[in-house]
Amino acid sequence: MDYVFSDKVSSLKPSVIREILKFTADPSVISLAAGNPAPETFPAKDIGDITAKIMKENPVAALQYSITEGYTPLRDTMKKRLAKDNCFNEETDELIITSGAQQANELSCKVLLNEGDTLICEAPTFIGSLNAFKSYHVALKGVEMDSDGMNLEKLEEALRTSKNPKLIYIIPNFQNPTGLCTSLEKRKAIYELAKKYGVMILEDNPYGDTRFAGEPIPSIKSMDTEGLVIYSGTFSKTLAPGIRVGFVSAPKPVISKIVVCKQVSDVHTNILAQMICDEYMNNYDMDAHLEEIRAINKRKCDIMLSAIDSSFSKKVTCTRPQGGLFVWATLPEGCDMLGFCTKAVEEYRVAVVPGTAFLINETDKTNSFRLNFTTPTDEQLVKGCEILGKLSRDMFD
Amino acid sequence: MDYVFSDKVSSLKPSVIREILKFTADPSVISLAAGNPAPETFPAKDIGDITAKIMKENPVAALQYSITEGYTPLRDTMKKRLAKDNCFNEETDELIITSGAQQANELSCKVLLNEGDTLICEAPTFIGSLNAFKSYHVALKGVEMDSDGMNLEKLEEALRTSKNPKLIYIIPNFQNPTGLCTSLEKRKAIYELAKKYGVMILEDNPYGDTRFAGEPIPSIKSMDTEGLVIYSGTFSKTLAPGIRVGFVSAPKPVISKIVVCKQVSDVHTNILAQMICDEYMNNYDMDAHLEEIRAINKRKCDIMLSAIDSSFSKKVTCTRPQGGLFVWATLPEGCDMLGFCTKAVEEYRVAVVPGTAFLINETDKTNSFRLNFTTPTDEQLVKGCEILGKLSRDMFD
Repeated sequence: MDYVFSDKVSSLKPSVIREILKFTADPSVISLAAGNPAPETFPAKDIGDITAKIMKENPVAALQYSITEGYTPLRDTMKKRLAKDNCFNEETDELIITSGAQQANELSCKVLLNEGDTLICEAPTFIGSLNAFKSYHVALKGVEMDSDGMNLEKLEEALRTSKNPKLIYIIPNFQNPTGLCTSLEKRKAIYELAKKYGVMILEDNPYGDTRFAGEPIPSIKSMDTEGLVIYSGTFSKTLAPGIRVGFVSAPKPVISKIVVCKQVSDVHTNILAQMICDEYMNNYDMDAHLEEIRAINKRKCDIMLSAIDSSFSKKVTCTRPQGGLFVWATLPEGCDMLGFCTKAVEEYRVAVVPGTAFLINETDKTNSFRLNFTTPTDEQLVKGCEILGKLSRDMFD
Repeated sequence: MDYVFSDKVSSLKPSVIREILKFTADPSVISLAAGNPAPETFPAKDIGDITAKIMKENPVAALQYSITEGYTPLRDTMKKRLAKDNCFNEETDELIITSGAQQANELSCKVLLNEGDTLICEAPTFIGSLNAFKSYHVALKGVEMDSDGMNLEKLEEALRTSKNPKLIYIIPNFQNPTGLCTSLEKRKAIYELAKKYGVMILEDNPYGDTRFAGEPIPSIKSMDTEGLVIYSGTFSKTLAPGIRVGFVSAPKPVISKIVVCKQVSDVHTNILAQMICDEYMNNYDMDAHLEEIRAINKRKCDIMLSAIDSSFSKKVTCTRPQGGLFVWATLPEGCDMLGFCTKAVEEYRVAVVPGTAFLINETDKTNSFRLNFTTPTDEQLVKGCEILGKLSRDMFD
């Protein structure tokens, strides 16, 4: 049988990250390539206790079919929590629980864009979202990042010149892969541009709660007076990613369509997982838990940055994140970034993700690569960065 | 803001079933409208024990990100189990764990069909699948059912005359909504037609393991020598639907594409749920558990059929299922089926699902409605059927 796949899917390839992660199955490889939160931040004991309680007191609710919108108590909990930050407006918004923020972002694209419409995003950006958008055969337009977020001139040019621009996708806090935050001024300006061009914004905020330095910046959602902003979040970086629980807060008509699309996608999100999140939010100390996560992540980020400072060639520059999971390193102009990353993993057994993985076209050029500081042990962070540092000095000094 | 949604989504409406289910939130309404398995079949105690064990012995694996293909031990378990029934061929097939069979069917459509290509299905068929297919803007062609499955002449006509037919969707065992089985002869004939026209088959088998009477019929997948059949299944009717675990066994190239699409949809299925399924399959007595489910379902189906036989107008006909969850009742020619269902729920407080819900166009005509025998209590089954029976005698005798 000669299989013919749909146009939208035939050009999709497994993520480069996942290919590199195959190297990391070898225990002799130090992986700085993951996108996983630190496993020591999982409240495993509490989740075990909660699960035992649910299975004892309310097993049928946890095991039977449920409604697509999500477990009502969790939705109420999240609405209240988001409303405090003006990320949920009781009068105009609705909220749905999704199977991770990945589903939130995928369905937002599905409900709003026809094949050929344009989705505008940061360049570089999260590969999982890029591939979700590509799987609906939409046109993607990347906008170069300054250190404080998307370049505004280039954003406006994209809005002005693209075919049917419908959605601006942005990760405003500790962006994946760069670790950068979009400044308050730029958030306001991006919102104004969306309003001017009648385009919606998908604000993806998986990392906002992990800020370990600096001051929180108001979300774009909190500025929204026109019903333009779809706001997605997740429990993946605050409780555990394996349970696959995320959410979307958005204007009611948008959520209605997302509900219909989620209904045909997976009916509803695993209900036990939703009950776990709700119980944790209400009967455990979520804020204290977040403080613990931040302390652990900060310590690990500091270890990575110190090791980079003391061992990398001075010609390599790095972002200095205030939260999230990633540092973005940039090699000197004109060098062979892919060669560096390949040599690092094949000869020196240290894996990082080449920056090309986060571009709309993997053949486009970047000198950067992504480093994760949450999954490795302290020792791996130090040793991995020392090895990369030595390689960088050998290649560039 | 005047929201403009994508063409593929703008015509999608929430399922009629869900609208009717809103009536059933009223505890005074007897609902024969659900599609849920009997909650007394859930092995709640065992699942509680298994969950406690996993959270004690292996919490990080249950809580961290995992691979898109699914939890490897569960995949191996399922491959072995399916291979016994010739539903998995180790040389040519691969298997992926999905978030319910709903996701399996949705992604099969996404990877194979372009907008405008034709998907051929039974008429009537499962509304969740219909809406999944519609959400990719494919053309749907329904083929009338005989009592032993799709009418073969009409199937061939559909294959011959449709625009780019790519996939035949079929629920061969205890079909939703009719409760009918496709005979062995028809399975063979459908497979031959698929081969003749170079079209693939999506064999959706959520109910196969629930057979409580008659002899099992070999799957179409087991006849597949050409790599034409995608076979999906689920733990929703054998363990519990709330955990959202299903699977697809299909030729390797097809699974590769489904993996990429699942990766961008929800990254992976809740990992704790996958571990629960694997532990149950390997360290508990799955076959004894299936016998229990069958006995419970048979008893409930018998109660419903007895009540129908003794109280319905003789002008109403019913299917007599040998498994699954549903009985399909057909009112006399020319009567007002929707009027009957509406009167039943509004005046007599008994909810059923009008057959129009299972048609490609809800404005098409049918005299049938769907009855579920697994979710109601014994008393509700008797009383609900007696009330419908009285209404049928009043209206048709």
